[in-house]
Amino acid sequence: MLYFEDYAVGQRAAFGSYHVTREEIIEFASKYDPQPFHLSDEGAAGTHFGKLSASGWHTGAMCMAMLVENMNNVKHASLGSPGLDELLWKKPVHAGDTLRVETEIVEKRRSKSRPELGLTKNRIQVFNQNDELVMQSINVGLVLVREPNAPIED
Amino acid sequence: MLYFEDYAVGQRAAFGSYHVTREEIIEFASKYDPQPFHLSDEGAAGTHFGKLSASGWHTGAMCMAMLVENMNNVKHASLGSPGLDELLWKKPVHAGDTLRVETEIVEKRRSKSRPELGLTKNRIQVFNQNDELVMQSINVGLVLVREPNAPIED
Repeated sequence: MLYFEDYAVGQRAAFGSYHVTREEIIEFASKYDPQPFHLSDEGAAGTHFGKLSASGWHTGAMCMAMLVENMNNVKHASLGSPGLDELLWKKPVHAGDTLRVETEIVEKRRSKSRPELGLTKNRIQVFNQNDELVMQSINVGLVLVREPNAPIED
Repeated sequence: MLYFEDYAVGQRAAFGSYHVTREEIIEFASKYDPQPFHLSDEGAAGTHFGKLSASGWHTGAMCMAMLVENMNNVKHASLGSPGLDELLWKKPVHAGDTLRVETEIVEKRRSKSRPELGLTKNRIQVFNQNDELVMQSINVGLVLVREPNAPIED
């Protein structure tokens, strides 16, 4: 089981392969983000999207699917996430793209008010098959501390 | 048509009514965030979620659905969003909840490199039927300027 002490700033990982279909882009957008550029090529023509493009929330959800699949490979004492520090949509995601993820721990610290908890910040990058960065976020994570009675260093 | 000049810091709006069902929570999570607390009450028991709770990405998507529905009521020269400055999941969203949105423009400025564009920052808050804040984000928006030859003031 991985605890807060087992994570280090600078640790990196790369994983995931998510094939994006036209059907899934339209299904997601119809329900949650029915703007023209997320529904058809015609609606995207003349916009900076150029052609049918996934909702940014859909890209976030596909990224989460890859993160959860990867988390399931390792037992860890994670308590979930209170949020993101930033979320940037850098390039459109199109039908036929295949997405993958790279992560790097950029910060970690013990909670002063709850010494049994640690906070990590992970930079999450989503790339397409051309190695273009399509999305980037800084995800905050809460992780149990293995030795909560150890002194808080920072 | 609303342009950048028509938005002012401090402008507020309130809208939306999204009823969250057990079926939709499980369907979304099964596809994009299959962690136990997003799939069943049993999987959530003993976690801080307590009972079946929506994926944070699902809450974001439901919020987007309300934002788009509201945008469709007003013609505006919006060019979409490059991202969010922060995204906080403050409380779990449960089956049976009804969500609504409050927004406030907290910042606006012209682009110096592209004077035909303006940038707005909107604080987006999602509340449940008990007026508890469940999600908050700062959404960055790009909006066309009506008079791009006007001097940039800031």
